[in-house]
Order: sequence, then C-alpha cells, then structure tokens
Amino acid sequence: MADVTLYGSDTWTSPYVFSVWVALQEKGVPFEMKVISLKNKEQHRPDYRDRSLTAKVPTLVHGDFWLSESMAIIEYLDELYPAPKFWPVFPAGAQERARARQIMMWIRTDLLALREERPTTSIFYERASTPLSAGGVAAAEKLVRIAGQVVPEGASTIFSEFTVADADLAFMLHRLLLNGHAAPPRIRAYAEGIWKRPSVRSFVEHERPPFSAYG
Amino acid sequence: MADVTLYGSDTWTSPYVFSVWVALQEKGVPFEMKVISLKNKEQHRPDYRDRSLTAKVPTLVHGDFWLSESMAIIEYLDELYPAPKFWPVFPAGAQERARARQIMMWIRTDLLALREERPTTSIFYERASTPLSAGGVAAAEKLVRIAGQVVPEGASTIFSEFTVADADLAFMLHRLLLNGHAAPPRIRAYAEGIWKRPSVRSFVEHERPPFSAYG
Repeated sequence: MADVTLYGSDTWTSPYVFSVWVALQEKGVPFEMKVISLKNKEQHRPDYRDRSLTAKVPTLVHGDFWLSESMAIIEYLDELYPAPKFWPVFPAGAQERARARQIMMWIRTDLLALREERPTTSIFYERASTPLSAGGVAAAEKLVRIAGQVVPEGASTIFSEFTVADADLAFMLHRLLLNGHAAPPRIRAYAEGIWKRPSVRSFVEHERPPFSAYG
Repeated sequence: MADVTLYGSDTWTSPYVFSVWVALQEKGVPFEMKVISLKNKEQHRPDYRDRSLTAKVPTLVHGDFWLSESMAIIEYLDELYPAPKFWPVFPAGAQERARARQIMMWIRTDLLALREERPTTSIFYERASTPLSAGGVAAAEKLVRIAGQVVPEGASTIFSEFTVADADLAFMLHRLLLNGHAAPPRIRAYAEGIWKRPSVRSFVEHERPPFSAYG
C-alpha cells in the first residue's frame, strides 16, 4: 500500500493537482490517487475540510499528515524524496531555484482574467467561445512576454533540465494555444514540447467524466 | 552599501512586501528599501517590468539578480542567510515547515472576497464602511476557522517559535479586527500579540503618504 495519497478533482482539470501529479510522476514514487467531486462539494465535508484545513484540492496525505496547497506539497515532496536519488523538483543553483519558485508563484497568483476567461475546462472539454476582455488580453500579453523572457531562445526548457515550473508554464500557455490565440512560434514550440512529456501526458490524457458532470 | 535592495510600494500597504520585510528584519541583515508608486504605475516602467518580470512588488535585488514573488523571495533569503547563524523563516521539522508554507500559500491564493472588501488600506488608512458580502462573510468565517485550527489553545504562535506564517496570518486577521468584526477572544489575542512584535511594528508604524495619494 502506498504511503502517500493525493486527492484531486474527478474532472482532472485542476492546474495545481496537475503540478503535484507531475512532481510525483517524475520522482517515480508510488502513490494512491483519490478523486472527489467539487461539483458535489465533497471538499466541504467536515472530515475532508478539517484535515485539509483549506477544503481544496490538491491535498496530500502522508501517513497521518494532511497537507494542502500545491507549492507546499511540492516543497514537502522534494524534502521527502530528495535528489540525487530522486528527480529534483527545482534546479540546482540558488538563483535558478528562486526563479523557478517565482514562476510557479506568479502562475498561482496573477493572470486572473485569463484564468477565468480561459478556464481549464476549455483545455480539457469545450473550447471557449467568447473573445477575451481587455483584462484577458492584457493577461495573455503578460503571459507571452514573461514566457519569452524566461525561456531562452531555442531552448526546450526554462533551465538546463525540465522542472515543474515548465509544467506549470506550459499548462498556462495551453489556455491560449488550445483556444486559438496567437503566440510566437518559439513559445508555441516550447509549450507543445513540454506537453509531450510522459508525466504531463498521463494527466492530460487521463479519463474524464462527460462535460455535463462539471457545470 | 547593502548588497540587498527591497522594492515596495510607497503606501506601505502590501501584505507581501510586509512579509518579506518581516523576514529581513528578523534575520537582521542590512538592506536598502526603495519604494515606487503603484498609483503612478511605476512598476510598469520598462526597466522595472523587464527585470522584475512580473511588474509587481515586492521585488528583491541581490547583486544583479532580480527576484519577485514574496514566497520565492522568502525562500531565497532563507537559503542566502540560513540558520543557525540567522533567524530561520520556517520551523525546523519537515511537517511543520510544510504547514507553514501551506498557511502562507493559502493566504496568498484564497479569501479573495475578504481581501477585496477589506483591503489593506482599511488597515492603514480609513476603515471599511460597507458590510461584507455573502462571499466576504464566508471568507471571514473560513479565516477564523483555520486560525482556530492552526493556533493551539493558549499559544502565542502557530509553532513553538514565531515564523513568517504568524506575520502573514496576523496581517490577514487584522483586516477583520480593525474593521470591527468579531473574532474569538483567543484568536484576537493571538493576532494582537503578533502585531506587537518589533519586526511587525516597524512596517505597520512606518510613515505613509496621505490617503489621497493612493486612490
């Protein structure tokens, strides 16, 4: 029996569950996946709410320790299963590690208009059909600008090796790419390259319930 | 000349600048503070935008390395100035450290209605005058519930020692306390105790421009 359990949503659409999933897959540690229905508000059931504290997914359970917030989970996993035996979540240098955390935190706290107008259901279910608002356009432009700054010309990853920051950035870029928005060819190539990684594909291609189960 | 510069807003109202400020004060390392006017959109000036990447405060400059996102900055500072020589940002145990990161991440990504309806200007300038919406009430209740769960009965800190997670949680609680909302006496006592800490006071009591400069 796995020592680690990951709680996600049954629609497999959470970018933060995705992020933890990729970290676990890349580390190659066994874990049990459990899904709950956010539509049915299962995250608010007292037992889940009180143990996760925040009533959100992802939540990691390690023994009797319950932990939510994807960044906290990823940091914890990297301490629990450290390099060099296990795949490192972050790059090796202190400044590169800081940059990776910056990108991951920025993706979790900014670009709200884009996240709302191009929700992850538009990646995995039906494409968005309404134009972006002015705020959505500004967020899309910011995303493309920053991706252009952090992904070196001709590179397939932000740093010398693939990290979870790549997974997070590519996921955010796919809100644009899959909904027909323009992006510079090298940014598109970068995001599509990351999207092919097996740890990423195993989440993207996971079986999902029909769309009606979500809304 | 200090090796480290911190960029904040000239109104001294950002909870994330506050968080980095507290970490730097507690570590006792010299740094230069620079403030920019968000009202005048100085964060969007090309030189600041391109170096900070995200065009936000706080941004830390260490030598020629520019870093934004408060969590990334705090992690970087803890690597740059590690314990035991310097005050540790996080608790010592892996699970307590994970819990501290969870609380800090949760404060940065949740309770949006409360953050909008009780902005930090209502802490440092004029109190809020409109009732909380249903969403604001739900966020306030969630904040009080989680504070009650993570702060042990009779304790003045979440863990055995003060951490930045205490500063962040107390800051969020003051959106309620200073705007006349009820909170359980022990939660109020906790938040008011943290509020008295010198590293906290030096930010809270810092000189600010008149309110009209903000809106």
